Amino acid sequence: MYRAPVEEIAHTLKHVAGLNAALEGGRLGDLSEDLVDAILSEAGRFATDEVTPLRKIGDEHGAVLKDAAVTTPPGWKDLYRRWVEGGWNALTGPEEFGGQGLPNMLSVAALEMWNSGSMAFAIGPTLTMGAVEALDKHGSDELKATYLEKLVSGEWMGTMNLTEPQAGSDLAALRTRAEPVGDGTYRIFGQKIFITYGEHDFTDNIVHLVLARLPDAPAGTRGISLFLVPKFFVNDDGSLGARNDAFCASIEHKMGIHASPTCTMIYGDGFAKDREPGAIGWLIGEENKGLACMFTMMNNARLAVAMQGVAIAEAARQKALAYAQERRQGKALGFDGEGMAPIVHHADVKRNLLTMKALTQVARAISYSCAHALDMAHASEGEDMRHWQDRANLLTPIAKAFSTDIGVEVASIGVQVHGGMGYIEETGAAALLRDARIAPIYEGTNGIQAIDLVMRKLPLGGGEHVRGYIAELREDIEKLRKSNADGFGRTAEKCDAALDDLAEATSFLQAAVAEGRQEEALAGATPYLRLFALAAGGSYLVRGALAGGDRARLALARFFAENLVDEASALKKRVVEGAKSLADADSALVS
Amino acid sequence: MYRAPVEEIAHTLKHVAGLNAALEGGRLGDLSEDLVDAILSEAGRFATDEVTPLRKIGDEHGAVLKDAAVTTPPGWKDLYRRWVEGGWNALTGPEEFGGQGLPNMLSVAALEMWNSGSMAFAIGPTLTMGAVEALDKHGSDELKATYLEKLVSGEWMGTMNLTEPQAGSDLAALRTRAEPVGDGTYRIFGQKIFITYGEHDFTDNIVHLVLARLPDAPAGTRGISLFLVPKFFVNDDGSLGARNDAFCASIEHKMGIHASPTCTMIYGDGFAKDREPGAIGWLIGEENKGLACMFTMMNNARLAVAMQGVAIAEAARQKALAYAQERRQGKALGFDGEGMAPIVHHADVKRNLLTMKALTQVARAISYSCAHALDMAHASEGEDMRHWQDRANLLTPIAKAFSTDIGVEVASIGVQVHGGMGYIEETGAAALLRDARIAPIYEGTNGIQAIDLVMRKLPLGGGEHVRGYIAELREDIEKLRKSNADGFGRTAEKCDAALDDLAEATSFLQAAVAEGRQEEALAGATPYLRLFALAAGGSYLVRGALAGGDRARLALARFFAENLVDEASALKKRVVEGAKSLADADSALVS
Repeated sequence: MYRAPVEEIAHTLKHVAGLNAALEGGRLGDLSEDLVDAILSEAGRFATDEVTPLRKIGDEHGAVLKDAAVTTPPGWKDLYRRWVEGGWNALTGPEEFGGQGLPNMLSVAALEMWNSGSMAFAIGPTLTMGAVEALDKHGSDELKATYLEKLVSGEWMGTMNLTEPQAGSDLAALRTRAEPVGDGTYRIFGQKIFITYGEHDFTDNIVHLVLARLPDAPAGTRGISLFLVPKFFVNDDGSLGARNDAFCASIEHKMGIHASPTCTMIYGDGFAKDREPGAIGWLIGEENKGLACMFTMMNNARLAVAMQGVAIAEAARQKALAYAQERRQGKALGFDGEGMAPIVHHADVKRNLLTMKALTQVARAISYSCAHALDMAHASEGEDMRHWQDRANLLTPIAKAFSTDIGVEVASIGVQVHGGMGYIEETGAAALLRDARIAPIYEGTNGIQAIDLVMRKLPLGGGEHVRGYIAELREDIEKLRKSNADGFGRTAEKCDAALDDLAEATSFLQAAVAEGRQEEALAGATPYLRLFALAAGGSYLVRGALAGGDRARLALARFFAENLVDEASALKKRVVEGAKSLADADSALVS
Repeated sequence: MYRAPVEEIAHTLKHVAGLNAALEGGRLGDLSEDLVDAILSEAGRFATDEVTPLRKIGDEHGAVLKDAAVTTPPGWKDLYRRWVEGGWNALTGPEEFGGQGLPNMLSVAALEMWNSGSMAFAIGPTLTMGAVEALDKHGSDELKATYLEKLVSGEWMGTMNLTEPQAGSDLAALRTRAEPVGDGTYRIFGQKIFITYGEHDFTDNIVHLVLARLPDAPAGTRGISLFLVPKFFVNDDGSLGARNDAFCASIEHKMGIHASPTCTMIYGDGFAKDREPGAIGWLIGEENKGLACMFTMMNNARLAVAMQGVAIAEAARQKALAYAQERRQGKALGFDGEGMAPIVHHADVKRNLLTMKALTQVARAISYSCAHALDMAHASEGEDMRHWQDRANLLTPIAKAFSTDIGVEVASIGVQVHGGMGYIEETGAAALLRDARIAPIYEGTNGIQAIDLVMRKLPLGGGEHVRGYIAELREDIEKLRKSNADGFGRTAEKCDAALDDLAEATSFLQAAVAEGRQEEALAGATPYLRLFALAAGGSYLVRGALAGGDRARLALARFFAENLVDEASALKKRVVEGAKSLADADSALVS
């Protein structure tokens, strides 16, 4: 059973991602280290004791649709109520509307713990937080007054309605219509798919944020507007009024996150027969600027999905470790006890467990560092703000894609460590892999993250920003060399080589983008993103090990450097030398 | 929907794995290329038209246990009947008992197709074939006369009962008891788990092969005997008699292969109340030599599981390709048609599809080459036989582990190519990943395969056998250099480098084994196995491309060489340089 690794999370936040420096520099207001510790500890307790025990029933029972109403699994509604009562939904919400306004660093740490407890549970509130952000930044005062407080507290939940059957990665193809009524409202008509928690029994009302086109809107992405469409209208006194014409037509039968209802939502299909057709919505932000509104929160949503990857990896690692310490088979070097050896002593199992741990910790460090950059941007102005915003923008696609990729990898290794038991659903290892598999897909597929990294993030600051970041990563390795610390083996040499590879691949891709060799840049994007994460990971693990003085952290950094980081060299070659064979293989040759 | 790739399978058998040379050398009796083509074509038709359409209902319905009886999904019993009537069960069975005695190369090709059609279906007969082999090689004339003909035809099915709760990878811990009755039979008492098709409705009788210990047996693996335990006793006239005390107590709820009943079997628990306790069994082979009997067929069973990996990868690749050709999103370089581009034109999707194809083809070539070696050993004598037996022994763990690892990888990429649709069970992409995940675990985990490769196969022929094999792989690259063929880019250079890495890692591990540095050898085993497969894969793809004169095969070899084979260098470093950090991280540091 998962136990929140509060100590490791705190260490990573404080000594790797930069929380302590930010606290000491007074960049996070009156937040103190004591308060951070108290919040992490209490979140850890709630995730361990309250969320985790309901994971399995969620997977087995799933969400159930009947007569357009969705019932969540037994105990889940009450879990949500307790979670909201604990104030967890309001952690980062605007203080003006009852939120605690705490930094992103605390939010991602808490998100990791909720998702380790149950990804199907944690994903719902994540959507609400996105709705809060969009509404807070772009909504009218009236909309904010009506909806924000209840969304911040969690009394109501929010959803994001982007995807349509023909419009997934390419939102330009969006067709949902919005017709102005004339009184400031709009009638919405259309079908949205893959709407997470589009319908459920957690809350009395659900606030849908829906992308749609006005009648005279330009084609493509410049003609998309964002609307707020409540499930129930809200009376002036705040009580709930009539039902809106926004209904869940079906829920998906998915590989995992069974308890999270993935809804097909129908807007304005006349379910509410007593009114004119159309779901009534209110514009958020300006007409035709809906995608911009969405993008302001896209980064945060991507970071939230990154935490799902970290979270599943952590849960899978703990489960595999517990099994490997318990299960006994055969003899092993290094075990001189009675009878068969616990399989944790077998070299191959040890390799698997260390690989799980190293990948998890690297993904965690990258993701927390991204949150740190967001917090620093929030606390800065001018050039400084630009620097931290660039940093967050640079790290976001890496955090999202690498964390969710290793989420799947680590969960799969976890199944393997369990042997035959891993394939049996009762064990729970397979469920983590099934849950993990969606995260590389949604919120922008990992292929799209890689393209974003190469095409939009490498050019930041005229290409200088990424070079500055790599220089910072070098400093960790320099510190290691200067420390003369014992037991690191070839860590410095290996990590430096990976940073060389990263620098070379970066220059290659920057030149390809600058010179319009787009196909080469696109071909190398996915291997480049992984190369980036591995090279950065070496420095983050070293940073953590030097700060901690802990033997396990040292051993982990060394294992990573001497076993996993060499992949960087192959990835660099793939970026620099592999594009042409891909370009030359026209699509007919692919089949 | 899967269509058997008969042309590619035939090309790989004939021009890569060595079938044509064997035919021309008269090593396969009176088998002709025409007969080969006819069999492959008909197997392809059956797999495509008959097996594949029942895959989904198998996954959705699953096997159902009620009152110790298992019902297979609707239509499955009839499918099995038609499959048996087609003579497919008897393909490789001994001719003396009605089998067709065809070579392993045809068997693995057919197995691939059945497994692509439905792995949950194909796995059942695979177990029967194992039982046939064990019985044919080690059974008494009387047992053979009673059981073999019906097992060969498929009128009855066979099972393999090895695993017990405390005895998985380590069979030394086996506890099931066998007590001599005095009349030549034995009473069996014990519980076996994970018994594939241990109970079902396909056939009237089921022949269980059960490992158990005699009362005076030595401890460990030298005290294990093999018994034949029929579900129903067989009368002298061949008709079925009384029910034996061998019952299915439960079936597992698994991540995938739902239609394959995975049974807990209870022997001798007194279900049959009207007799003395104990399931009645007959000894196969000598007392205490049961494990040796099992090992004679272990290689074939491992190769059969390898085909599951290849099969799932092929099915996943076809499904992803079809989706990518159909699904349209965004704009893509190289697509100048109307509207949005089919996603197959996007660089990242193309990379995914070519990666799927290359890994699948490499796994297929290795597995077929292993079957070729078995056939050559069967057709040879003396030194020659020893050579081919060594070759089969060398390639078996690589075929099993690499094919099943890439089965999971390719199926996972397949889900990714489908985007959100990949996560929806109706699409079928997720089901392939769920099915694939067991294959790296059973029939010896892939970690155990890697240990087998390093500890037992590298020393074959005093270490010379593997060097001879690597030299053969070099010849393909030499041929490529001499051919001056156009369009191969840096293929020769890259493949040569990978073979250098393989040679270096091989020498390192051979020395480690020879010098008793066991921990180093064990630590490097898993990365070494993958390195081996990738380096061999380059040569096999080149061989296929040079033989075919086909642009797609050439493009694939080049893509593999310029994008995937460089991983060999990182793997080599992991083998040679990574062991120490693993050894130094004692099990306390792993947690």
